[in-house]
Amino acid sequence: MTQRQFTLGALAAALGAALDGDSARVVTGLAPLETAGPDDVSFLTDPRYRDAARASRAAAVLAAADAEPLGPAMLRVKQPQIALVQLLLLFHPRPPASPGVHPTAIVAPDARVDPTAAVGALAVIERGAVLGPRVRIHPLAFVGPNVEVGEDTEIHPTVVLVDGVRIGRRVIVHPGAVIGSDGFGYVFDSGAHQKIPQVGTVVIEDDVEIGANTTIDRATLGATVIRRGTKIDNLVQIGHNVEVGEHAILVAQVGISGSSRLGRGVVLAGQVGVADHVAVGDGAMIGAQSGIHADIEPGAKVLGTPARPIMQAKRIFLSESQLPDFGRKLRELERRLDRLEGRGGEARRDG
Amino acid sequence: MTQRQFTLGALAAALGAALDGDSARVVTGLAPLETAGPDDVSFLTDPRYRDAARASRAAAVLAAADAEPLGPAMLRVKQPQIALVQLLLLFHPRPPASPGVHPTAIVAPDARVDPTAAVGALAVIERGAVLGPRVRIHPLAFVGPNVEVGEDTEIHPTVVLVDGVRIGRRVIVHPGAVIGSDGFGYVFDSGAHQKIPQVGTVVIEDDVEIGANTTIDRATLGATVIRRGTKIDNLVQIGHNVEVGEHAILVAQVGISGSSRLGRGVVLAGQVGVADHVAVGDGAMIGAQSGIHADIEPGAKVLGTPARPIMQAKRIFLSESQLPDFGRKLRELERRLDRLEGRGGEARRDG
Amino acid sequence: MTQRQFTLGALAAALGAALDGDSARVVTGLAPLETAGPDDVSFLTDPRYRDAARASRAAAVLAAADAEPLGPAMLRVKQPQIALVQLLLLFHPRPPASPGVHPTAIVAPDARVDPTAAVGALAVIERGAVLGPRVRIHPLAFVGPNVEVGEDTEIHPTVVLVDGVRIGRRVIVHPGAVIGSDGFGYVFDSGAHQKIPQVGTVVIEDDVEIGANTTIDRATLGATVIRRGTKIDNLVQIGHNVEVGEHAILVAQVGISGSSRLGRGVVLAGQVGVADHVAVGDGAMIGAQSGIHADIEPGAKVLGTPARPIMQAKRIFLSESQLPDFGRKLRELERRLDRLEGRGGEARRDG
Repeated sequence: MTQRQFTLGALAAALGAALDGDSARVVTGLAPLETAGPDDVSFLTDPRYRDAARASRAAAVLAAADAEPLGPAMLRVKQPQIALVQLLLLFHPRPPASPGVHPTAIVAPDARVDPTAAVGALAVIERGAVLGPRVRIHPLAFVGPNVEVGEDTEIHPTVVLVDGVRIGRRVIVHPGAVIGSDGFGYVFDSGAHQKIPQVGTVVIEDDVEIGANTTIDRATLGATVIRRGTKIDNLVQIGHNVEVGEHAILVAQVGISGSSRLGRGVVLAGQVGVADHVAVGDGAMIGAQSGIHADIEPGAKVLGTPARPIMQAKRIFLSESQLPDFGRKLRELERRLDRLEGRGGEARRDG
Repeated sequence: MTQRQFTLGALAAALGAALDGDSARVVTGLAPLETAGPDDVSFLTDPRYRDAARASRAAAVLAAADAEPLGPAMLRVKQPQIALVQLLLLFHPRPPASPGVHPTAIVAPDARVDPTAAVGALAVIERGAVLGPRVRIHPLAFVGPNVEVGEDTEIHPTVVLVDGVRIGRRVIVHPGAVIGSDGFGYVFDSGAHQKIPQVGTVVIEDDVEIGANTTIDRATLGATVIRRGTKIDNLVQIGHNVEVGEHAILVAQVGISGSSRLGRGVVLAGQVGVADHVAVGDGAMIGAQSGIHADIEPGAKVLGTPARPIMQAKRIFLSESQLPDFGRKLRELERRLDRLEGRGGEARRDG
Repeated sequence: MTQRQFTLGALAAALGAALDGDSARVVTGLAPLETAGPDDVSFLTDPRYRDAARASRAAAVLAAADAEPLGPAMLRVKQPQIALVQLLLLFHPRPPASPGVHPTAIVAPDARVDPTAAVGALAVIERGAVLGPRVRIHPLAFVGPNVEVGEDTEIHPTVVLVDGVRIGRRVIVHPGAVIGSDGFGYVFDSGAHQKIPQVGTVVIEDDVEIGANTTIDRATLGATVIRRGTKIDNLVQIGHNVEVGEHAILVAQVGISGSSRLGRGVVLAGQVGVADHVAVGDGAMIGAQSGIHADIEPGAKVLGTPARPIMQAKRIFLSESQLPDFGRKLRELERRLDRLEGRGGEARRDG
């Protein structure tokens, strides 16, 4: 990698930032506040780190338009997080892929590979597959028969796209992910589980990202669908005939059982499990490790197994700490009542 | 894919169904009730969807022998789920594999590959491996040294079968699964974890199915065993020296720790964890996300972490909702008792 | 595999063991107590299995220096578990790798491969990668651009080492593991999740072991770090910018969210989840399936979701069984109080 360098003035222009500092000063790297040196630009995207920003050795700090003055020079922008993305791309531009098919890739004669697509070493492209413009298939990836991959999509090493799945545009599939494996369906007959053929497919819409070693099963009939803009982390399992709405977030190790439907903008935190045939409404947020066994209202925030509204779940959690005390208190109250009932009788006799 | 077509009469004959309708009518596809068109056959395997069946545009509906008459023609059978499997296979027959070794596959000179077996592009078959009749090894799969694969077994792309594992007949291993990786065993000595060599193997019996990116570790000594007919979903972890009985069902993301034994016909729902050295009796059913830390009786139905009988677990869950109330009620009872004890004293004095 | 054989005298010498028995007797295998035959040596590393040791048909049993005499001959050592590791290696020595690059491996012209390293069939070594002495890259593995792999490290089939990750010495990476995939980071803007470029790396220090299909994400900036001696099981997820201390143990299906820090010697049991930006202190032990949402003190032993001190968690679990009773008892106490309050009044009137 060749090192890139910019003047603060050039960075301010690229980011549309207001610069408080020397526009001629040169920076050669981008680093967090604590580790930045005098040749680096850094960033303050979370006001909680203000003290670290003040103490930083960075040449300049990217910050919000209304941030207090800091020691280093400042690049002020309206949306520091968005500007940070631009800054990351300025210092670490994506290496361009060289179009063309590596001589060791195995491409079926009737596969259609756009001349601008790149197919890496030892990748396998099966019969009838279609790779659109600027698609990038990394080494050792498998593109099954009749799979379609839309333009600008990147398929990382050892990914498996099974027969006939359809991948949209600008999709990223990280290493080891499997899209289109058989759904898990059997019918018990004659003393054994008989496999229900899984003859549907998977449709991944545009701008979806799929994490490493994640698995998405094909539908029994019809399609398992991941709608556009949804981001899926590593080691996630998505069962057959599931539909995930647009712009959803599925954090690592989430599992979604067959035929469930997640609405638009749903957020599932890590290790959440969703039972089969469940509907999770638009914008619902599910806390980490929760278990979803029934429909969830749009916009609901739930937690726990089975999941409850998050405030109720937290109250229950607090009460649980007192649970061993409750038993002790109940026994004490019983003793006091026993005494009182005896005493009450005496009072009567006394009376 | 070429489209297949059948008359309803031909389908009735193939399924052994009684037809209520026009036996000459031609259908060209199979689809769910909601999406079926006038050229499709559909199915009603769950009576809850009777209304959808009545409203369906399908040419005919596969249904139970005693189902009420519907709008479309009906194919009546005793076991609609079994007939549906046949119907799926009629419309979507498995493409035949061409026997032979792809010229780019790397096959060790002393590996024995049955002439009816198919080895795909860039697959690796190591020394001493044995592939039986009609075995299908997909592209980019790895069959390690001395591995044996029984007849009619299918090994999907990027599967890894590590040294010496034995795979039975009619087994399906989905993409990315790893069979025979080292068990997780160490002994702490001289300030570090020393690896315990894992020199055992894995035995997968006949008719087992193993999901995408699932991992099954080899035994320390002896064998990790998956008995015949067992079906394992995606992303499941099976530790060293585990034994899974016949016809078990392990749903996605289940994890089983070392040396545990699952009986025949056990069902583990999604994300269940089983501790090490635990025995789960024949036919036990474990609810989703449960944690199993002690032996489970045959036929038991349990839920939760740690797992309890399912009815008890559900009662506890309902009570938990009242837990914050319990605290409030306890305090109220205490106040009432305080008052009464004071009053009881007065009553005495009064008397 | 050729069978290896030793006299008990030779084994005693190799292990530094005191032999009670015939030093000339020959053994040809190593097996557990129950399955060992008269040509095998066995081992008693856990005193609970003493009865099995007495009944064993083994020619000799490896046992503690102070173990009671058994039926078979005995090899007495101070640390039987350590000696067992030696015994496993004596009977099952690691097959030596033949140095050299397989003719079908794809190695970039500027990659530096030590002449003692072994690169298997159809492995891909990208530009700028460095493989140290005696490194072993198995078939179908992917070593990305500028990746460095330290001496004596073993990379199993289908492993993916993404651009620029650094792997130490004597590391083992099991099949299907992915090291250096993008961290999961987005900023929501213009109605969609915008990807935050993940331009950091992953550093795996010496003597680390990484399980099958485990995923370790690269840092946004800087490095995700796994410190020396740490052992990671299968299907574990480690997020961006995480740091795992030395000699930690992460059991299967654990998930660690971004920027969390685990101390030295931490143990996470199976399926534990750790939230982001959390610190787990040195030597802390986290029970299976726990959820860690806040910092954990060094040496703490915790359990549950959210995690509590293990003794408290167990007390709560016991109390939970009585929870449905608590409700009943509370209602009974209320009734008794109602009666008493009425009776107290009567007592007064009586008096």
